[in-house]
Amino acid sequence: MESLEYLDIVVRGWMHDARNKILAAFNKDLDVWTKSGRNDLVTNIDKEIEKIYSKNIRLLFPEANIIGEESFTQGDLNMNGMTWFIDPIDGTMNFVKQHCHFASMLAIYENGKGVRGYIYDVVGDKLYWGGPDVGVFCNNEKMKDPSNTVLRDGLIGIGAPYLIHNFCNLQAVALASSGTRMYGSAGIQIIHVIEGKCVGYVSYLRPWDFAAGRVLAETLGLSMKKIDGTPLNMLVSSDVLVATKNAQKDIAKLTKKS
Amino acid sequence: MESLEYLDIVVRGWMHDARNKILAAFNKDLDVWTKSGRNDLVTNIDKEIEKIYSKNIRLLFPEANIIGEESFTQGDLNMNGMTWFIDPIDGTMNFVKQHCHFASMLAIYENGKGVRGYIYDVVGDKLYWGGPDVGVFCNNEKMKDPSNTVLRDGLIGIGAPYLIHNFCNLQAVALASSGTRMYGSAGIQIIHVIEGKCVGYVSYLRPWDFAAGRVLAETLGLSMKKIDGTPLNMLVSSDVLVATKNAQKDIAKLTKKS
Repeated sequence: MESLEYLDIVVRGWMHDARNKILAAFNKDLDVWTKSGRNDLVTNIDKEIEKIYSKNIRLLFPEANIIGEESFTQGDLNMNGMTWFIDPIDGTMNFVKQHCHFASMLAIYENGKGVRGYIYDVVGDKLYWGGPDVGVFCNNEKMKDPSNTVLRDGLIGIGAPYLIHNFCNLQAVALASSGTRMYGSAGIQIIHVIEGKCVGYVSYLRPWDFAAGRVLAETLGLSMKKIDGTPLNMLVSSDVLVATKNAQKDIAKLTKKS
Repeated sequence: MESLEYLDIVVRGWMHDARNKILAAFNKDLDVWTKSGRNDLVTNIDKEIEKIYSKNIRLLFPEANIIGEESFTQGDLNMNGMTWFIDPIDGTMNFVKQHCHFASMLAIYENGKGVRGYIYDVVGDKLYWGGPDVGVFCNNEKMKDPSNTVLRDGLIGIGAPYLIHNFCNLQAVALASSGTRMYGSAGIQIIHVIEGKCVGYVSYLRPWDFAAGRVLAETLGLSMKKIDGTPLNMLVSSDVLVATKNAQKDIAKLTKKS
């Protein structure tokens, strides 16, 4: 445990360094490329930050698996031993167009079990971090479990394509809630759920999008599964629903197989 | 002009006072009522702030028309002489559920022409204000016109009901953009457009939702009309599209009568 406590200090230091690099980039021209489609962006800053995180991790843990957004290759991946997930900038579109509403994320899993999640709201300068042994903190303040609000009394985050195409009947979920919110970053959306500002968030996510959020959400007593209630596979992209336990039950009644 | 300059100082003072009252309310139990439907909320703080704004306006301008969210009654309204629009808390649902992402708004029109708009991002402590004679400021910093970005290269804000029900074919607009954003407050969405963080925002709005935003948006060279391109009636609730001129043209090609 002592070593994890020490690691928290080290990792938070890495992330503060990353923040300074990211904020400095606002004043420079970015190199922007598209990946899977015209709205899936990566910049030189995403690549640079991931490289630094990877190098730092390798120095401490030469044997660890590293699954990073910008270096991910399908292959003989497994979750044996220590696995790190890196999302240098989650919400790159917002980073490019808005200069806000994006997060930097890291997660540590041991033999498939989440031990640490770190989600940094870079512009808001709020680092959400923790794990099952210590609880969850926002910067230095310990967070309480969010109240177990039902869907009807809460705001729900839904990815735009899922809402437009009514994936799994999610339009009914939107209409049954108090309102729909779309911030354009899984990290920022998950922060809203762990803070109790939204009762849930559902979207198609890749492992580095949800690895850190899963550790924090589950530590705070939230549910994080696929929409159909089956467990997440940490090596596979899929639909992901993070929600209060009550909202998860309400959503299960409204959703259908797609 | 001198009197408007003086008025800016006075009104900004009112709004800073309102901010203090609103932030103080986070630590107290709110009285919350529903209005037109279960997701249309009003609190004792909305009512209290509107009352204070109205009283302040009446002291300076006993003859002015006042159109306020919480006191609005259909009737013999007109825009002759001076008209004030008051939205004490725009995004009351966010105020109640999130304690952020809401705005306090005031606007002044003279014989139907907008002369001043004030949109206060209360938690962010950023007051956007100005009019055609002085330009638009964020706190004390003069804002530049946002760049005339096309729809394809920008983020678009769309009200959830419009997106779900595909009002006027807005799903096609969402899919043609760089991404959709929903923040749950017209004031906050319009701030994103005047800052150039989104290329547009479209929703069903009431006069006090768009009165201040219209003054700021048009002063900054943006388009603010109904979706079909016809002018807004300041006394009538309707669909409202605020956008860069290029995005407005792109959206006009994609939308249909509903």
